Amino acid sequence: MNKKHSLKPFFNPQGVAVIGASQNPSKLGYRLAQNLSRSGYEGAVHFVNIKGGRLLGQPIHKNLADVPDPVDLAVVLIPAPFVPDIMEKCGKRGIHAAIIGSGGFREAGPEGAKLQEEMLQIADRERIRLIGPNCIGLLDTHLPIDTTFLPPPGPTPGDVAFLSQSGAICAAAIDWARGQGYGISRLISLGNQADVSETDLLEPVAEDEHTHVLALYLEGIKSGRRFVREARGVVQKKPIIALKVGKYEAGRKAVASHTGALAGQESAYNAAFRRSGVLRAKTSEEMFDQARALAWSPLPKGNQVGVLTNAGGPGVTAADALEEFGLEMAAFTEKTLSSLQEILPKAASFENPVDMLASASPDQFASCLKVLLDDPETDSVMVIYPSPPLYTAGAVAKAIIPIIHGSEKPVVVSVMGERLIQEAVEHLRAARIPEYRFPERAAAAIDALCERADLLEFAKAEPLHPPDIDKETVKELIANPGNGNIIDSQTAQRIFAAYGIRTAHTKLARSEEEAVEISQKVGLPVVLKIASSEISHKSDVGGVLLDLGDEGSIRSGYQTILRQAQNALPDAEMDGVYVQKMIPAGQEVIIGAVQDPQFGGLVMFGSGGTEVEGLKDIAFGLAPLTEKDLDYMLENTWAGRKLHGFRNLPPADIKAVREALARLAQLAADFPHIQEIEINPLRVLPEGQGAVAVDIRIKSS
Amino acid sequence: MNKKHSLKPFFNPQGVAVIGASQNPSKLGYRLAQNLSRSGYEGAVHFVNIKGGRLLGQPIHKNLADVPDPVDLAVVLIPAPFVPDIMEKCGKRGIHAAIIGSGGFREAGPEGAKLQEEMLQIADRERIRLIGPNCIGLLDTHLPIDTTFLPPPGPTPGDVAFLSQSGAICAAAIDWARGQGYGISRLISLGNQADVSETDLLEPVAEDEHTHVLALYLEGIKSGRRFVREARGVVQKKPIIALKVGKYEAGRKAVASHTGALAGQESAYNAAFRRSGVLRAKTSEEMFDQARALAWSPLPKGNQVGVLTNAGGPGVTAADALEEFGLEMAAFTEKTLSSLQEILPKAASFENPVDMLASASPDQFASCLKVLLDDPETDSVMVIYPSPPLYTAGAVAKAIIPIIHGSEKPVVVSVMGERLIQEAVEHLRAARIPEYRFPERAAAAIDALCERADLLEFAKAEPLHPPDIDKETVKELIANPGNGNIIDSQTAQRIFAAYGIRTAHTKLARSEEEAVEISQKVGLPVVLKIASSEISHKSDVGGVLLDLGDEGSIRSGYQTILRQAQNALPDAEMDGVYVQKMIPAGQEVIIGAVQDPQFGGLVMFGSGGTEVEGLKDIAFGLAPLTEKDLDYMLENTWAGRKLHGFRNLPPADIKAVREALARLAQLAADFPHIQEIEINPLRVLPEGQGAVAVDIRIKSS
Repeated sequence: MNKKHSLKPFFNPQGVAVIGASQNPSKLGYRLAQNLSRSGYEGAVHFVNIKGGRLLGQPIHKNLADVPDPVDLAVVLIPAPFVPDIMEKCGKRGIHAAIIGSGGFREAGPEGAKLQEEMLQIADRERIRLIGPNCIGLLDTHLPIDTTFLPPPGPTPGDVAFLSQSGAICAAAIDWARGQGYGISRLISLGNQADVSETDLLEPVAEDEHTHVLALYLEGIKSGRRFVREARGVVQKKPIIALKVGKYEAGRKAVASHTGALAGQESAYNAAFRRSGVLRAKTSEEMFDQARALAWSPLPKGNQVGVLTNAGGPGVTAADALEEFGLEMAAFTEKTLSSLQEILPKAASFENPVDMLASASPDQFASCLKVLLDDPETDSVMVIYPSPPLYTAGAVAKAIIPIIHGSEKPVVVSVMGERLIQEAVEHLRAARIPEYRFPERAAAAIDALCERADLLEFAKAEPLHPPDIDKETVKELIANPGNGNIIDSQTAQRIFAAYGIRTAHTKLARSEEEAVEISQKVGLPVVLKIASSEISHKSDVGGVLLDLGDEGSIRSGYQTILRQAQNALPDAEMDGVYVQKMIPAGQEVIIGAVQDPQFGGLVMFGSGGTEVEGLKDIAFGLAPLTEKDLDYMLENTWAGRKLHGFRNLPPADIKAVREALARLAQLAADFPHIQEIEINPLRVLPEGQGAVAVDIRIKSS
Repeated sequence: MNKKHSLKPFFNPQGVAVIGASQNPSKLGYRLAQNLSRSGYEGAVHFVNIKGGRLLGQPIHKNLADVPDPVDLAVVLIPAPFVPDIMEKCGKRGIHAAIIGSGGFREAGPEGAKLQEEMLQIADRERIRLIGPNCIGLLDTHLPIDTTFLPPPGPTPGDVAFLSQSGAICAAAIDWARGQGYGISRLISLGNQADVSETDLLEPVAEDEHTHVLALYLEGIKSGRRFVREARGVVQKKPIIALKVGKYEAGRKAVASHTGALAGQESAYNAAFRRSGVLRAKTSEEMFDQARALAWSPLPKGNQVGVLTNAGGPGVTAADALEEFGLEMAAFTEKTLSSLQEILPKAASFENPVDMLASASPDQFASCLKVLLDDPETDSVMVIYPSPPLYTAGAVAKAIIPIIHGSEKPVVVSVMGERLIQEAVEHLRAARIPEYRFPERAAAAIDALCERADLLEFAKAEPLHPPDIDKETVKELIANPGNGNIIDSQTAQRIFAAYGIRTAHTKLARSEEEAVEISQKVGLPVVLKIASSEISHKSDVGGVLLDLGDEGSIRSGYQTILRQAQNALPDAEMDGVYVQKMIPAGQEVIIGAVQDPQFGGLVMFGSGGTEVEGLKDIAFGLAPLTEKDLDYMLENTWAGRKLHGFRNLPPADIKAVREALARLAQLAADFPHIQEIEINPLRVLPEGQGAVAVDIRIKSS
């Protein structure tokens, strides 16, 4: 059965059976029946309850088998222990889609989990797709249909779809929407997600012509990679904005590297949302604030914002808020300035933010807004005003609405105040223009539009697959990892070599003699490093000596290192000392990767050295990386920005860093068995001279 | 005349003359007269207008001189050019307080500025205190009095005082307050602040018994140090929360140090607000959100928060939001857990956040809230709920209000939703319990209460005045600064010595010979550094050589350094080479100070080296520093946290760092002529061994 096709009855059922419909108005089974009957649903509605009787003018069938055609969706609200059996009956009756509202499953403990498993097995056998259990149901305001048992009134029809892993948030969301003046297209409470998950519903919900934006409340994602794949496709057509909570619940696991210590679940979610082109909301309020901007506004072509106001204070506040988000105040053309001068009194401020003065009339608002929108230097406009002393806020709103509708650039409005400006608010909402009471939230909405434009690029970017990669060799090497978890240095070097990552040529010496021999082969000066699979951070135990240029210092260095390491860790087994050709000076960065349980390979870049975890100058991307990811990681870290040259540091070989990151990402993507990879430092030589992995560590599972 | 006493007529006038009262209802002079008449003001109200006539049943006096007693406050709304003359007349009539609403002064350009100056001179001469010009006026809802010309209705009486440098924000604030359900005690529009400034009004407004919190909208502060002094006093009694905008307007100035480059106006404002104990709001919405929490709630004794909810999703969302603010989820006592188990069904979650399940009754809400408040591990509680399916949100509110009133711990409530929960909202507002539609804003309110408790400590802390400081010596040294702006190294060393800051013993050598001689005196090994007042960053030009242990390397080093520096900067004048005893290894930090134009000495601490500006691991405090400032600067930087020891770094001499900072701050406070001081690095030796300024720079004005 086509999995996607199988979800169709949820959104366009021919007939719905309410199993557990109740005559008792205090029961949820009554409220559900009532919501469904009142929703305007045009298909058949059937009630089922073992007790029989009549409800809302219709018979209640005692058996599901008695329900006449058409019926292809069941909404189940009976006690959990009876649900598995009813699944069986659904199958027999030819119903292959069910919404299980009942609680008492996995969320209620081990017994409930068993029951859920049983239900799922029967549903699978009967080829029934399930939403829930322990959910509030779903509704579609345009079809229309309402299978929830929420207290009325239901949401106003609109264009924001809301998918939620929390039922309680659904109830609040409907009311928030009413208060903030936007409508809901579809609302789906996902419950325990025994079968259908948030990911399964992205595409079917996005296909709905009435839905302009998808808002998600998430506590987790079941299958990370599949989510990324589905979401990447969906966002090409419709924006997705997600609130992911549960940030502080992730447990800590034992790690062997800086990358492992820093790459938490949240870094993975952030990297995954970015790759998928999904906007991550910081708060519930922001999610809905921005969802309506995304639903209603065209996208800006850039970050240059014009601000139009009738007072100084609001102008400064708006400019501050915009710049806080990294947006820029547009520098107007001469033409704009002279047009404004024609419209406004001499005492007005014509530069951005434009202060038209308190006397500004609705006509002046409209004319100036048109001028700002026509300026090629302006990508979007924010209009901000408290109720003007001589006109009503509503009159201003009415005057600017046609100008906003006539432009291809987004305009957001901050009408400052609350009760006095309700008329303006009503006009703007009816015209589907995003409006906010506070300037900072209007600025956040413009930021969301800019971010959406940028995220589209992230979603479109294709993962890089660097050439000349010898996967087979690594397969063999990994098949027989070295002693313990940490792969020995020689093997690690060969793994990197197979993936085209240049490492400092290093050989293991087991005696002074050998150390001298190797140093003659690799060339002087050399670096000596303690070789022990039990030592993670060599320099911490005095296990590194640099720049040894003659035989004498190599010999004494060999002894010094062994002695220091043994003093520091008397019980550690020492394999000897690595001899490495000294690499020329350059900038040093850390690159690494871990396997995230949800999203797989997660790559880190940043300021290396021993203080990585203190400085936290790092950025993450999902493996394999795209060019956009590489841009992001390098632009959002000091380590990355510094590569362009800094004070006496010459510009470093950025191309080589990008290449090393792409190759390391490919390695992490190709071998989920490699738990952690870290190069710290990767020494980045001046432009054109490459980058060399100086210290490397690979941990297999 | 006592300056403070002279402000009394603004807040308790015996009689008010409205100069510019108008019979024309479309004029502001009419609206002002109307607002004042309707405000319930019990003193005498007099109208003045050169045209005469009658207004609101009263005569309009043609001349101010004709106005009968009592009258001690003038509200002026006539065209700017006539204002200076009316000041004269006010003086003659014995009026010594005036609110100038008229615009057309400094804000309107050079001519207006001249007019303002003229007005101010006359006012000074006539001993008249002025609020404005270009302001909306002031109002007090308890006296009551309303001298604004804002469109009605005015604000509901309440306990939040609002002082604003923007008139437009005043109008919005009244309406925001109405919408968010709190009242205003006093509202003052400051206008151009020709005379009375935000600082002048802090104390008089805080003295008002009806005012429980002061909210400030600021675009700047005229006299920084005075503001800090006044605010520190006021916050001991009443909280102040400020929104300071105009962050991005500060121009850049030429600087000679990292400290100078990083110590922007915003760092100074942040340090000043912290020192004064003033809460800085991030957005306009946050200012008013938090103002009402501060006005209505007791302060928590600590950061441990209990969360009570009827659903899982809201619980996770609340926990996330709280932890995002650095607050902690309280770990309940056994007693609490068993009490909760008695009240709630088995399937509930008893650990924090407490999920009572959707079935929770108002009684259960109340009983559980009482349990949480009685837990000694809990400092505050957040109640969060969407409208419950089986009860009304209002019933829950009614049930919990007496519990909240009966506790000395703060409780904030997030009733999720908007229209459906209005009854609950009305109850909570009437009971003066801070409530929010969104959980994240409720969390922010708890955070504000915790921050207020902490800020009280900042305000109480007394500046440190380190002993054994030889101010006289520095006075002499500064009187004759070296060549140019940068003070020469020998003088700088003597300045530091006079303030008890240990520097690496350094002497200038003008020849190889001298370098060798000095090295023998200070002891081997030594460091050589280029000496030139034209070179700021010595290592950038190859001007530093470390660890030279014998005569030969000192001789060749001397030549190398001069050659390298000359190659890098052929036109720079070289004074020779500094010879310095090599300091033992230790952690390195940067400490520095600049003079901020508003707030004076501003001290910086953080990660030093050459990448200070890239890493931005820095914190600021106002000179002279308090112990609280030192705590803050060390706890909020990686450089500071690292001093406790990190991996193979032993614990460093934190006491010595604190002492060096305190002494450097004292130096900056004592000598405003010293524009920039920087020690980079200050090498911090292991515990008990002190800290040594290795590279120092002082720039005088």
